[in-house]
Amino acid sequence: MNPSEQRAIVRYEVQGAIERDDWVAVEHPFTITVDGKEFATFVCTPDHMEEMVYGFLASEGIIRRADEMASLNIDLEMGFARVELHNPQAAGKATVSKRFIGSCCGKSRQFYFLNDVRTAKTSLSTVTLTVRQCFERLGELQEASGEFKKTGGLHNAALCTPDTILVARSDIGRHNALDKIYGYCLLNGVKTRDAVIAFSGRISSEVVLKVAKLGAGVIISNAAPTTLALDLAHDLGITAVGFIRNHSLNVYTHPHRIKP
Amino acid sequence: MNPSEQRAIVRYEVQGAIERDDWVAVEHPFTITVDGKEFATFVCTPDHMEEMVYGFLASEGIIRRADEMASLNIDLEMGFARVELHNPQAAGKATVSKRFIGSCCGKSRQFYFLNDVRTAKTSLSTVTLTVRQCFERLGELQEASGEFKKTGGLHNAALCTPDTILVARSDIGRHNALDKIYGYCLLNGVKTRDAVIAFSGRISSEVVLKVAKLGAGVIISNAAPTTLALDLAHDLGITAVGFIRNHSLNVYTHPHRIKP
Repeated sequence: MNPSEQRAIVRYEVQGAIERDDWVAVEHPFTITVDGKEFATFVCTPDHMEEMVYGFLASEGIIRRADEMASLNIDLEMGFARVELHNPQAAGKATVSKRFIGSCCGKSRQFYFLNDVRTAKTSLSTVTLTVRQCFERLGELQEASGEFKKTGGLHNAALCTPDTILVARSDIGRHNALDKIYGYCLLNGVKTRDAVIAFSGRISSEVVLKVAKLGAGVIISNAAPTTLALDLAHDLGITAVGFIRNHSLNVYTHPHRIKP
Repeated sequence: MNPSEQRAIVRYEVQGAIERDDWVAVEHPFTITVDGKEFATFVCTPDHMEEMVYGFLASEGIIRRADEMASLNIDLEMGFARVELHNPQAAGKATVSKRFIGSCCGKSRQFYFLNDVRTAKTSLSTVTLTVRQCFERLGELQEASGEFKKTGGLHNAALCTPDTILVARSDIGRHNALDKIYGYCLLNGVKTRDAVIAFSGRISSEVVLKVAKLGAGVIISNAAPTTLALDLAHDLGITAVGFIRNHSLNVYTHPHRIKP
């Protein structure tokens, strides 16, 4: 399946209407079953789906390592992945979307889902990067996405060192792009402690939680953060850099990792 | 609670670093219980929460009219709404996120959640609007959102006639802004058949489904659509207009409602 398709449109410009074809981002429904039970249904860009399944299940706390999965069968056209685990699932679907209320978990009072308390790690990253490196990596992320330029409808995420992009993924869902990155790291044994995540969307709480789950210590983005995202980033030791635009940027949390 | 808060940031510009305060969009966790059972937890901008609860539950197929709710108690600070229904819930949480597979539902082959098959209506709208009215309504939507301008982190949605905005709502989650509009319509008995939805985000399948559920026939947006959104819009009789920018726009489906 392709990440974009052509569709017939009517375009109005100052000089009038034109009928033409335009590229549109493909959105595809996808369901994951775990040990025979329906676990989750979501929509995504249908590429890198093996990474997507590993990253999503790790992010939801169902697996911690790639070798915990006994088998994975993907039917991309139908939009199904059938996962069998080596050990029957300890934490079922019931706990995954359960509200967390508490103030003594030791990591952050800002968690709102129970499973995030188990899976989001506090960063011990010693990475630092310069303001120039923030501009460069985000610029490269934007350059890398041909599909975004074609369709205007994708979010991009990349795992970087301060000096270069290691892997970039796109998706119509911004959390999916991060799950694909997470899956890539699990499948390829990539160390993430000193990684930097470059991201094309807003820094929401869910985005910060994904960054913490995949183990990185810095997120850089062209867009705005939310208060809850910043509270979580503060508590989880993550440096959040937003509004990287026109030669300026904002450092919201743990600014010691960003150098002039 | 306010929709935005000030946070201390370090801002780097060409001339160096400045420490200052900046406005950040508030993101607040919120849990809805129905008849004593936890139904859903999401994050949102904490305003117009009564509308949010009504619109969300209607969108999920739990209620169809406002008077089906026997009581609603909102604890905004804690982030909880306790809902009691007049009739015990016919469709439980189990069916809400269940994958739909089928090709004979009579409305659209593109549904992926079971409950959408019940709740998304095919539009019989006879509304038409001009290209100029598309530009005007979307321009007004962008003008109306002071919080977006302050924080850069909110999505805006408005219920419009061709000539004016009737009600506008903002949220950090774009689906929430539509749920608030839906709740407003339910609580105030607003007829939606010939309404136009102006929207500041991408036209995803979920956005088109929300438009169909609240009963409108036209969505206009500055952003890109996805293939699945356009398939659903085609099948559900909804006119989708995107990329409204710089004196041009694209009509993707049912173009008879847009006049030069």
